Amino acid sequence: MPIQAISWSPSGAVRIIDQRALPEAEITRDLESAESVAEAIRQLQVRGAPLIGIAAAMGLVTGLREQRAASREAFLMRVEELAGTLGTARPTAVNLRWALDRMVRVAQDTGGGGADLWERLRVEATTIWEEDRAMCRKIGEYGLTILPDGANVLTHCNTGALATGGIGTALAPVYLAHKQGRKVHVYVDETRPLLQGSRLTMWELGHAGIACTLITDGVAGTLMRQAKVDVVLVGADRICANGDFANKIGTYGLAVLARYHGVPFYCAAPRSTVDTSLADGELIPIEQRAASEVTVMAGRAIAPEGAAALNPAFDVTPARYVTGFITDRGIVQPPFGN
Amino acid sequence: MPIQAISWSPSGAVRIIDQRALPEAEITRDLESAESVAEAIRQLQVRGAPLIGIAAAMGLVTGLREQRAASREAFLMRVEELAGTLGTARPTAVNLRWALDRMVRVAQDTGGGGADLWERLRVEATTIWEEDRAMCRKIGEYGLTILPDGANVLTHCNTGALATGGIGTALAPVYLAHKQGRKVHVYVDETRPLLQGSRLTMWELGHAGIACTLITDGVAGTLMRQAKVDVVLVGADRICANGDFANKIGTYGLAVLARYHGVPFYCAAPRSTVDTSLADGELIPIEQRAASEVTVMAGRAIAPEGAAALNPAFDVTPARYVTGFITDRGIVQPPFGN
Repeated sequence: MPIQAISWSPSGAVRIIDQRALPEAEITRDLESAESVAEAIRQLQVRGAPLIGIAAAMGLVTGLREQRAASREAFLMRVEELAGTLGTARPTAVNLRWALDRMVRVAQDTGGGGADLWERLRVEATTIWEEDRAMCRKIGEYGLTILPDGANVLTHCNTGALATGGIGTALAPVYLAHKQGRKVHVYVDETRPLLQGSRLTMWELGHAGIACTLITDGVAGTLMRQAKVDVVLVGADRICANGDFANKIGTYGLAVLARYHGVPFYCAAPRSTVDTSLADGELIPIEQRAASEVTVMAGRAIAPEGAAALNPAFDVTPARYVTGFITDRGIVQPPFGN
Repeated sequence: MPIQAISWSPSGAVRIIDQRALPEAEITRDLESAESVAEAIRQLQVRGAPLIGIAAAMGLVTGLREQRAASREAFLMRVEELAGTLGTARPTAVNLRWALDRMVRVAQDTGGGGADLWERLRVEATTIWEEDRAMCRKIGEYGLTILPDGANVLTHCNTGALATGGIGTALAPVYLAHKQGRKVHVYVDETRPLLQGSRLTMWELGHAGIACTLITDGVAGTLMRQAKVDVVLVGADRICANGDFANKIGTYGLAVLARYHGVPFYCAAPRSTVDTSLADGELIPIEQRAASEVTVMAGRAIAPEGAAALNPAFDVTPARYVTGFITDRGIVQPPFGN
């Protein structure tokens, strides 16, 4: 069974698994304010493009609990304010702003005072979560069609239950294949610098009893050369109208290697990951994170003091490398309209 | 000034910098027996194909200090024995066996008793070291011709002063360019799992005052796409007669990416790295190292307990990806004869 990455606490807080602590410790946190949700997103306690959209929508509701007695006007002002705080927690994934825009619009379109609006937003956030769960399942079903029995999948980063409200994006077909009793094995890129592959993907696949083997990111090319990889499945943080997409750093190199070795390369994401306002990948803002993520590990210096490091969190893969986009609406090809 | 990775201690022990401790601690160790040299090679306290050849030759001399009073026959038996111990410390680099074979041959070809043979071997080991230093310089000089002023070099693993008896193989042209006052900047792959790039290459380039930027291994493809890399320079642990070569895991992927982006890709190594007994790369034995190198970092678990991991120390890059082999005899092309 895949694990559950997010839920409401009995008091209406956002309950998360602290993904920074995995796999050493399984820590559940109840985030009691929108600010603490924003901070958890910033610190990657909650990560994965779909999940941070859900977390932001839920965080907005949590943060507005105190405003239920407020006037409509005061409530809406606070909605905007908290949406601003949550929306700037991370820059690359489109889902964050997509979810918040939807929440703000719903609030504006709902009649009544603070209590009415809050109740409506609570329903909307839960709907976003449930839709995500359904989207994951759809992606899994469409993705199943490209997974042969006995498939060796190679994946990067974490795109599973820990990245979504459901069974994941790129890992959804793997979960469904396993559930149906098909043989499937996953090569998991450790995904430096933050090791989402070794820490999170290995953890959740292990939990579900799915065969998986960890590799360092530099091993993928050789596995492809040895014909040990049947398909590469990755997620996306933002997909442009022309199909160029941003995903965890290292994805672009994998895409080139897959093309070069004739290995099918699929990008799996809900349709909401498409940002039609961006014509192509050159326009995607790429988050640059602290050098210390590369130079320090577990509190120990792994590079000399003062070493310069470049640490882009994402890279952009041109659409031409993608065999197909596995979405909740089928396996599709760009360009993408509204 | 590049640092000095190996030397004789006053007592005739092999003095090394413990490369496992860098960059946190600069620990010098005097290895007083052939067995301790073999163990240091096995544990990667001493690493780098050329350097382990030198260390093995010197370790043989150190281990034979007590045999100087022995008969010729007893001495030669001990030579064979210790060469066996040292020669199996690591399987992939050809230099280890090349250096030991040369030492054994010299011992056999020298007349006299233990004292004569030992003195001859001491000279031979020092000669191997001095030849390596000269080879590094030659590689640097030939390599300079392909480094434009202001070059952005991308390198993998550690192929510098810490990997050789001199100024390195793939880093030798960089050292010489810097010495001549040319502008040069190095992108350094951190090189998982053992982080020779971040721990060693960043350390020695920083020591020498050469501009360098650390990246995780997954960043290289994007840098090439952005035309930020002028040339890729890597070393080799074994080069076959047809030019296929083994080098640190991740090299193959870099080679494909370089080819794909039209970036020149050079392999720098002394001619002694060529193993003409192997027709092609399929025949190179690839060392598989412990999963714990991938699953544990600085004593902390970075993957769930019991996670399976594949940890090949090297990969094989086919000759067709190599723009040229920068050797101490010039920039050459395969095939390589004796």
